[in-house]
Amino acid sequence: MFGFINPHTFASHFLHNLPSLKPLTSLLIFLVFQDVHVMIFIGFGFLMTFLKRYGFSSVGVNLLLAAFGLQWGLLMQGIWHMDHGKIKVNIFKMINADFSTATVLISFGAVLGKTSPVQLLIMTILEITIFSINEHLVANILEANDVGASMIIHAFGAYFGLAVARVLYRPNLRNGHENEGSVYHSDMFAMIGTVFLWMFWPSFNSAIADPGLPQLTAVINTYLSLATCVLSAYAISSLVEHKGKLDMVHIQNATLAGGVAVGTCADMNIDPFGAMLIGFIAGIISTLGFKYLSPILASNLGIQDTCGVHNLHGMPGILGGLAGIVAVALGKKNGSASMQAAALASSLGFALIGGAITGLIMKLPFWGQPPDQNCYDDSLYWEVPEEEEENEGSLAPADPSKNKAEA
Amino acid sequence: MFGFINPHTFASHFLHNLPSLKPLTSLLIFLVFQDVHVMIFIGFGFLMTFLKRYGFSSVGVNLLLAAFGLQWGLLMQGIWHMDHGKIKVNIFKMINADFSTATVLISFGAVLGKTSPVQLLIMTILEITIFSINEHLVANILEANDVGASMIIHAFGAYFGLAVARVLYRPNLRNGHENEGSVYHSDMFAMIGTVFLWMFWPSFNSAIADPGLPQLTAVINTYLSLATCVLSAYAISSLVEHKGKLDMVHIQNATLAGGVAVGTCADMNIDPFGAMLIGFIAGIISTLGFKYLSPILASNLGIQDTCGVHNLHGMPGILGGLAGIVAVALGKKNGSASMQAAALASSLGFALIGGAITGLIMKLPFWGQPPDQNCYDDSLYWEVPEEEEENEGSLAPADPSKNKAEA
Amino acid sequence: MFGFINPHTFASHFLHNLPSLKPLTSLLIFLVFQDVHVMIFIGFGFLMTFLKRYGFSSVGVNLLLAAFGLQWGLLMQGIWHMDHGKIKVNIFKMINADFSTATVLISFGAVLGKTSPVQLLIMTILEITIFSINEHLVANILEANDVGASMIIHAFGAYFGLAVARVLYRPNLRNGHENEGSVYHSDMFAMIGTVFLWMFWPSFNSAIADPGLPQLTAVINTYLSLATCVLSAYAISSLVEHKGKLDMVHIQNATLAGGVAVGTCADMNIDPFGAMLIGFIAGIISTLGFKYLSPILASNLGIQDTCGVHNLHGMPGILGGLAGIVAVALGKKNGSASMQAAALASSLGFALIGGAITGLIMKLPFWGQPPDQNCYDDSLYWEVPEEEEENEGSLAPADPSKNKAEA
Repeated sequence: MFGFINPHTFASHFLHNLPSLKPLTSLLIFLVFQDVHVMIFIGFGFLMTFLKRYGFSSVGVNLLLAAFGLQWGLLMQGIWHMDHGKIKVNIFKMINADFSTATVLISFGAVLGKTSPVQLLIMTILEITIFSINEHLVANILEANDVGASMIIHAFGAYFGLAVARVLYRPNLRNGHENEGSVYHSDMFAMIGTVFLWMFWPSFNSAIADPGLPQLTAVINTYLSLATCVLSAYAISSLVEHKGKLDMVHIQNATLAGGVAVGTCADMNIDPFGAMLIGFIAGIISTLGFKYLSPILASNLGIQDTCGVHNLHGMPGILGGLAGIVAVALGKKNGSASMQAAALASSLGFALIGGAITGLIMKLPFWGQPPDQNCYDDSLYWEVPEEEEENEGSLAPADPSKNKAEA
Repeated sequence: MFGFINPHTFASHFLHNLPSLKPLTSLLIFLVFQDVHVMIFIGFGFLMTFLKRYGFSSVGVNLLLAAFGLQWGLLMQGIWHMDHGKIKVNIFKMINADFSTATVLISFGAVLGKTSPVQLLIMTILEITIFSINEHLVANILEANDVGASMIIHAFGAYFGLAVARVLYRPNLRNGHENEGSVYHSDMFAMIGTVFLWMFWPSFNSAIADPGLPQLTAVINTYLSLATCVLSAYAISSLVEHKGKLDMVHIQNATLAGGVAVGTCADMNIDPFGAMLIGFIAGIISTLGFKYLSPILASNLGIQDTCGVHNLHGMPGILGGLAGIVAVALGKKNGSASMQAAALASSLGFALIGGAITGLIMKLPFWGQPPDQNCYDDSLYWEVPEEEEENEGSLAPADPSKNKAEA
Repeated sequence: MFGFINPHTFASHFLHNLPSLKPLTSLLIFLVFQDVHVMIFIGFGFLMTFLKRYGFSSVGVNLLLAAFGLQWGLLMQGIWHMDHGKIKVNIFKMINADFSTATVLISFGAVLGKTSPVQLLIMTILEITIFSINEHLVANILEANDVGASMIIHAFGAYFGLAVARVLYRPNLRNGHENEGSVYHSDMFAMIGTVFLWMFWPSFNSAIADPGLPQLTAVINTYLSLATCVLSAYAISSLVEHKGKLDMVHIQNATLAGGVAVGTCADMNIDPFGAMLIGFIAGIISTLGFKYLSPILASNLGIQDTCGVHNLHGMPGILGGLAGIVAVALGKKNGSASMQAAALASSLGFALIGGAITGLIMKLPFWGQPPDQNCYDDSLYWEVPEEEEENEGSLAPADPSKNKAEA
């Protein structure tokens, strides 16, 4: 019991036996996870509420897809990481499950208003399955860096969704649809989504980073990239719009491109300047994409991208992948530039091919796809309340279907 | 100074003297508390804004009751835990104070739109007082498990509120009230409440769990229960509604029943399957309750449950209590099944009797209870702005009562 | 290797080498920072959306100013804290950068609706520069206490903004403006801001407190002050309004005055009673200010304070500074009462003079200041969607400028 002690053995004994540090760390990572959770359920959900008559579907179907997708994502992760034949759940896997749903919610944005919940559930199953194959390839075979998932979530989700949108092309809607626009209050609801995404993106990009300095670096780089991205998005929006006005579509979306684009490099030693440069460029290309590229995709290529995910997730995701190649080549983090390039190519390839096949399956005629004239309209899938009448204060019985307790 | 060292004494010396771990832990628990705080003030507040003309009261009176209730709750806790004749405040007590207000906000849902702020403040005082007696009994005398408070908060709050609602029965409103329904945007505001409650429920159920594995177990079980609950709530809503449509009332409420029902068992060793089963069943009974039971309660028993708290908190809370009895009987956690049953019975008994007495006191004619025709209407208690006019841009002086700075 | 060990050397060796405690602490402080971030971007942004036709500008320009301001704030901090000629970014500096933007957003409230984005960007540069001089003086030269920044952020930001508002006085709007009021839903959006500010204020006041007991004290004092402030704000609002009704302007703002007023004393040993007293008084003077003082400022002094920042930040900020003088004089924390008084005087002096000069620069005729009739109107700076039409379901092509993907 008493005797000489080897300090090093003793030290490792102590560090090993510190009773509360490991659960403390898990609880701390759980709180980072909560930020990611807010991005998935409030962020993505409300960002898509900009349409005048599609708010119930945006936030409601977002909840359905994400809650279903995270369970499917846990299952898909389990395939690679079995533990005595059982799938164990921990906070790290919960983060990855939320990540896997993010791909679906991005693709959802490309086909918003033109698909039924059943079609979207099928997309969820297929997309998360394909995502987990690509993710395994990128992370474990290629061993590429992608801490904030510019490639494996953002570029993947965007091009997957665009491929689906191409297959589901609706020629009758090539001149737009009456309901495919916002009203004042729907744009305000969308800003709730935008701002929560913007604020919590540093948590997203750092959630699975190595603890310690890499994690803090991911926080700081993302924070700086997003801050400069706001400036370039506002500046370009004002430059390209009539009379120097700002366009809500740009502000709701392009201000976030900096978070997407800095993802791959987030935990790298790219200095504040590097992060800010990436964010600045992302804000420019995203805004220009909304203004000039989306109309071309719609009219020439038959890609009707409802939320403009190509501008928010697609191009900034590729920019992030390219920045990662350059940063690794410059030695900002250990890795191989060619493996980074392979990871980007793999993510795009799986997305386009997987999305096209998924789109064909979704096109089968028995999934309840909405007819053209009912697109962008909640009332096809939801009990929608009548509009407010102004004769307040009377005691006339309400329409019973609107009466919560007695419906 | 120099000499032989007993490693075990030494170890405990170190662990005792680690300078920053205890405040670190307190700060960490404060951040978990913040999630609970968001559920209380944003979650409950906005969940109740679904009514077309009662948003100010829902979120505003929610703030008043919660801010008052947490002070009363701190005082009531102080009675059991005096420290040299003083009431000390710490993060743990702040969590419990927020918990005690949750009972009031649940009961508020049962009488929403039919009570005055003064009546509700009286209910706050009485309900938190009775809650703290029952909580003391359940936790310290019966020593029952109820980490996520299915019994002592959810079932208690629901049946307390239903008893009050029964006493305050308004026969003239038995066919509903014109304002007792939602409009499109009010349903969107309510979804803010729903989604924040849904996301942060794992923090609620784990906030007072034992640090370490039990706390993480509570997080994971709640997360899984909520995820499956969404699936069953959507499925049943679509099955029971006309043409397979979804009903916002179900989505806003029944998706949360999994968080309620898994509360008692949250920190138990029930495996992912157990948690998911509880959530799945909760989603079913909650949705069916809204569809079929609430109308019966209203028409046959005279219980006009505005927000349907019986379906979200009442039945799922009892389900949680029953699941806790079974789980303890199966040895998922140390405890006595009969004490669990006694805790459930105690919570229901205190709720029904306490609620009935409270309702009688609230019925006294001098608390400003609104007349039938002014129910569900903010304008009785709030200065409500005139509706938007469309003649923008003119310089005509506004109604001065609408002018913030010059009112 | 083996030998006698000095326990104290050994202890310091261990504590020094604990591998994960420092990054753990940084990550924890990052999560506190996230609460502050939510206050800046959601809290301030949505609090100002109460105006019927100025929501895009409130939340959108708030995002622009804050994203720009935090970069400018990092730069200004860098001047005092250079590291080998480089500006290093860490979580602590991110908190301070967010703090420096808070001054601008408070001042923004005083001139909301009457200034162009370019004018506001100029104000951002000048105000943060002057803030950082005063902050350096108060913290490093005077060594005054102001952990929650009642003086250096709230009083400073308010009086800076009021000085700007005075210089930009618009005599044609002395009887108000048609758009200078709320509608029902805009008041609901504003409550999102209010409630997030209210909930997360304990994080704001404790974010830069000394770790350990002082930080927890700051949390608890702020929580208690805010809770009592709600009670006095509701009580006074009901007392001074017609028929005992509540006024949304009071509820949205005066409920927060307790967070402002307890700022300076937050980490002091003022006991729960002290914190609650400060909050209670703050709620009274803030509500009375909205009711009686704002109209006088507007009509007699030519200060048109759109959001009533004098009542939420100005007077409660001075109250906080005075409370700090008293508390230091009573020995609640080490310090000099005269240095506290000097800090308050310095903050007010820099604010009034700095604001007046800034206002004169903003008045130069080439910054695009809106004409009187276009005040409080988003459509001057934003593409605003047409109002909702009711002929849903038709396939008529939408106005292409409203079509997101094809614009």
